[in-house]
Amino acid sequence: MNAWLIEREGYEPENTADNGNRFLIGNGFIGVRGTLEEYGADKMAALNLAGIYDRAEGQTWREPVNAPNGLFARLENTGNILKHKQSLDIRHGLHSRETVYEHAVLRIERFASMAEPNVLCQRIFVEPKGGPVTLVCGIDADVWDINGPHLMDFKSEGGDILKVSALTYEQKLPITVYEDCNRAHDEIRVNGNSIFRVFNVAERFVLERAITVNAEPVAGSYDSRLAAHKAVWERLWRNSEVKITGDGNAQLSLNYSLYHLHSIAPRHADGLSIAARGLSGQVYKGAVFWDTEIFLMPFFTLTEPSLARKLVQYRINGLPGAVAKAGEYGFDGAFFPWESQDGGIEGCTDFNVTDVFTNRPVRTYFRDKQIHISGDIIYALCRYMDWTGDTGLWDNGGLELARACAEFYLSRAYCRPGSGVLEWTDVVGPDEYHERVDNNAFTNRMAAFTLERAGMAREWRGPKLSGGVVEQFDGYFALEDADLETARGRLRHPKEYWGTQSGVAFSTKIIKQADVLALMNLFPNEYTDEEVKTNWLYYEPRTEHGSSLSACMYALGACRFGRAELAYPLFLKSARADLDGGGKSWAGNVYIGGTHPAASGGAYMIAAHGFAGLRLAGDKPELNPCLPETFDSLEFPFILRGKQMKARVTHGRHGIE
Amino acid sequence: MNAWLIEREGYEPENTADNGNRFLIGNGFIGVRGTLEEYGADKMAALNLAGIYDRAEGQTWREPVNAPNGLFARLENTGNILKHKQSLDIRHGLHSRETVYEHAVLRIERFASMAEPNVLCQRIFVEPKGGPVTLVCGIDADVWDINGPHLMDFKSEGGDILKVSALTYEQKLPITVYEDCNRAHDEIRVNGNSIFRVFNVAERFVLERAITVNAEPVAGSYDSRLAAHKAVWERLWRNSEVKITGDGNAQLSLNYSLYHLHSIAPRHADGLSIAARGLSGQVYKGAVFWDTEIFLMPFFTLTEPSLARKLVQYRINGLPGAVAKAGEYGFDGAFFPWESQDGGIEGCTDFNVTDVFTNRPVRTYFRDKQIHISGDIIYALCRYMDWTGDTGLWDNGGLELARACAEFYLSRAYCRPGSGVLEWTDVVGPDEYHERVDNNAFTNRMAAFTLERAGMAREWRGPKLSGGVVEQFDGYFALEDADLETARGRLRHPKEYWGTQSGVAFSTKIIKQADVLALMNLFPNEYTDEEVKTNWLYYEPRTEHGSSLSACMYALGACRFGRAELAYPLFLKSARADLDGGGKSWAGNVYIGGTHPAASGGAYMIAAHGFAGLRLAGDKPELNPCLPETFDSLEFPFILRGKQMKARVTHGRHGIE
Repeated sequence: MNAWLIEREGYEPENTADNGNRFLIGNGFIGVRGTLEEYGADKMAALNLAGIYDRAEGQTWREPVNAPNGLFARLENTGNILKHKQSLDIRHGLHSRETVYEHAVLRIERFASMAEPNVLCQRIFVEPKGGPVTLVCGIDADVWDINGPHLMDFKSEGGDILKVSALTYEQKLPITVYEDCNRAHDEIRVNGNSIFRVFNVAERFVLERAITVNAEPVAGSYDSRLAAHKAVWERLWRNSEVKITGDGNAQLSLNYSLYHLHSIAPRHADGLSIAARGLSGQVYKGAVFWDTEIFLMPFFTLTEPSLARKLVQYRINGLPGAVAKAGEYGFDGAFFPWESQDGGIEGCTDFNVTDVFTNRPVRTYFRDKQIHISGDIIYALCRYMDWTGDTGLWDNGGLELARACAEFYLSRAYCRPGSGVLEWTDVVGPDEYHERVDNNAFTNRMAAFTLERAGMAREWRGPKLSGGVVEQFDGYFALEDADLETARGRLRHPKEYWGTQSGVAFSTKIIKQADVLALMNLFPNEYTDEEVKTNWLYYEPRTEHGSSLSACMYALGACRFGRAELAYPLFLKSARADLDGGGKSWAGNVYIGGTHPAASGGAYMIAAHGFAGLRLAGDKPELNPCLPETFDSLEFPFILRGKQMKARVTHGRHGIE
Repeated sequence: MNAWLIEREGYEPENTADNGNRFLIGNGFIGVRGTLEEYGADKMAALNLAGIYDRAEGQTWREPVNAPNGLFARLENTGNILKHKQSLDIRHGLHSRETVYEHAVLRIERFASMAEPNVLCQRIFVEPKGGPVTLVCGIDADVWDINGPHLMDFKSEGGDILKVSALTYEQKLPITVYEDCNRAHDEIRVNGNSIFRVFNVAERFVLERAITVNAEPVAGSYDSRLAAHKAVWERLWRNSEVKITGDGNAQLSLNYSLYHLHSIAPRHADGLSIAARGLSGQVYKGAVFWDTEIFLMPFFTLTEPSLARKLVQYRINGLPGAVAKAGEYGFDGAFFPWESQDGGIEGCTDFNVTDVFTNRPVRTYFRDKQIHISGDIIYALCRYMDWTGDTGLWDNGGLELARACAEFYLSRAYCRPGSGVLEWTDVVGPDEYHERVDNNAFTNRMAAFTLERAGMAREWRGPKLSGGVVEQFDGYFALEDADLETARGRLRHPKEYWGTQSGVAFSTKIIKQADVLALMNLFPNEYTDEEVKTNWLYYEPRTEHGSSLSACMYALGACRFGRAELAYPLFLKSARADLDGGGKSWAGNVYIGGTHPAASGGAYMIAAHGFAGLRLAGDKPELNPCLPETFDSLEFPFILRGKQMKARVTHGRHGIE
């Protein structure tokens, strides 16, 4: 088994959504969906750009802009497809396809250069089997837009270098795509806003193309660029590769997760973070969620602190947006967005789900009640400082950030008359199926943590317990104890949203995702292993795992009480989320498909903090392993306060060096 | 125009629901729906009994039990109907029908004796036009049950007196119906649980029947019983008749309203109150709502204080149920039910609306968040004491009631950290389309009023104002300002409920019913006429009037600023609610049809407190008239502190004597 290769045989345009995610390549600036070169908008072809947000006509929010597709290529006069294979080298982010037609063989390689963030490279190999075939390749403007179009005022130029330029609808930001190649074409074909080269191919033929987005094109051969690209990947793996022996499937799956994390990390620029769907499209408006702080930061904090610092810095830069949002609701301090956009502006609307029965937008409370985000950010900041030792950040915006969040929590709190005990009412916790709850245990702890770290600690309402089980929020235990199958049986439409007042989960104990278990993982010293176990056994059967943030929290919990066999399938579920595909793609009538970086980050957390049990005890790293039976060993590098270390775990032995 | 007669021509079984309400007769104990004598369960025939509540199989709540229909009568061998008329003498609660068949004429009169609460009387006149016809009459067990059946273990006995007895399902309460008549039958017919007499009628024929429910039958002629019945009605009108000259339609409509109020007043027993749908059926579980305190009490307080005292006493008796309900939610004191049943027990479930698209029950917040009910009760108690002078009630349960309600409000309140200002968050105000709101102006005032009257006053959050408009609750002004037609156009099903998170009103400024205007009417001294006007002009166009509690509050408001022409159509709408019929009969998939006593009580309030403007200024009654153009004069008696008084208003003159 090659633990670095993803392959899929058979031409399957019906799987275009899943394959688009599965075979994604990216370099932090450009994400290229794993669609075939001949695909257009109808098959979700997209070159997703990090950090370029714009409104489409009539839209109330900004979303990332897709560039015209410079990687477009189509072979004509081929006859039918006889054989087809798509593959991805996840060690080096190298995408390949090979198609055997009746009259020709086509092979194409492509990569998004890790060495040059504005550059995509492509090598096309054509071998006619009889008469000549026609290769059409160039810059295709027909790319996927969920709510678009975003680009206007197109101009295209042919010549040695093709060029398509356009302006974004709202802000008139320029988007320019150049294509240069190493052969002379036979013809230029212009089709609307697209421009193509045409090659009449009568014999074996290799074409190398370089696509440059939003930068001036620079000469360079395909081979030299590929070498530079691979060198960056090798450097990244040196600091982050997790080696598993004994379980090839686990190794491949985890490699795949880390591949995605590296592919979407914004190394090329300051002031950016990572969107919830990475660079796989415009879903969720390309916004940054708490996924980044709680599910992605652990990986980067341990393997690439400079990148983790960027993610923190993005939030520090977003303080004015969060202050504005708090003010909008009449509160002090900083209320960080649920969907953070360009400049830290809240992108979420009050109507985030469309009802499948009425096709009307439904009032949801992600935007205004999910107040734990501010605390998650302070938590991630503090965790970053603890592991990296980069405490300088505290005086360069960190303390200000913490104080602003604490002020928010203070002004958002209520007390019973005559009591000084803070309560946070009318909130949405991680489990979004239960909206507008009081004293969500997770939220209260995050708020209190923020107040503590900001030096503004107050007495606050801790969670209620019953038989050792933490009540997720006030009144949770009184809800209907319907099981998952009963709830599922109540659905009247396959895309029905489970939450909101009339949804099938709302009035039951069924939760979308880890909530109390998330609390216990984030504050491990406050709960004994036995308490984690009690709560795991209570909540896991009641969890729909309707979010990619869920499985890893339960896997981490299971490792706390030594049950690797419970954690293992959840690890695979997290690690293989985008590899297996088939996940939930709709919330009501809203498309939510794409890659799941938080699941990838979660898989890393399970390996490092669950299976190996890496934790900080004061200044010292320690391991509390809980290794799956199938693993012989687990080994990974990490950086603690600037020092490169390595953790190694086998059954019976473990150590850090 | 006869201001005491309701008539309708034509046999119209398709209007059976509206006619059943329109032609209702009742004496406080028994309500007989205005269905024709030959109707059964399928046409909503019901003899609704006050104060006898029971559960049907599988039900989680109790609802009033319907007795077998002793008034059943059917003429056979008649040929087709040629002519038909149904009428109601609303001066005396005397129901008549006259049907001309091909082969006979049938006339039937009936009344629910005001002198003997267990007795219904009926006189049947048959005139064959050729050959003989057959009259079948007796006790029919086939009566309307919304969630029934409620009765079990039937026994029927024939003889001089017919008898059908049964036991209720849950509590085995006996229900017994006797029928006695003044002629010998030709035959007895038993059909299931029903028993009938059969008369072969060859010539003019008069049959008088007396039906006795849950009491031993006592002999008495139809005429003597009718005389005694009428005498009670005349006595009731002496103390309550509102005389309007110049506008026959207004006179008739108001007479009709007062007729209904008298027909459902529980004079016969202690410990009862009035259900939201009176005695017209089992809708709303036969429960007592705040309708009684705010919309019915003013009429009885002014015209029949002994009856008003009973209504207060019902709540005093219900204190343990309200204390239990507060305890259930973790609060102190008394949290009175939204739907008060037998013994003051909350009858409302957490799922009070069934979604029309999924047919699933939807979580609603009538039960747990409509906290203004406790305050409404204290308000009505204080108003009763102010007008009647019956302050003894304060020491006999009134103060205890007020304190218990105040304790509830105190424990239900929140303060911002470091503040002593009480806020009531997460409530439902009178406008039920907006659930779970904070600082509803009406609710806050009611809570504060209760605290004041209980001697436990605290600082509290008063309403926010913008341009003189009171904000109904925090954030109301930020909602979408859709107009009614826009919202209506968004409906996707005719029975769709407008409230709840996914309903068309929820996220807009459209309100179900008077809310701020209700506040202003209940606390008239706290708002100037100009302020009432500003708020009326703002809120009325945004009100759907989806509740029969709405129109009267707006009419009263319009009288405050001298605009009788705005009040007048709302007065007619209130007064004629059951006369015109056609009101909203469905909330989602839940049937909510029946009579609307609160609209009847509201019509009285408009006449007495709006058009005449009767108020107490300290100890003294005063008039602030706002007489409609069409009225020449308005005159009505009332009782103030035991003293019989009379108010008289014409254009230009008014006085109290």
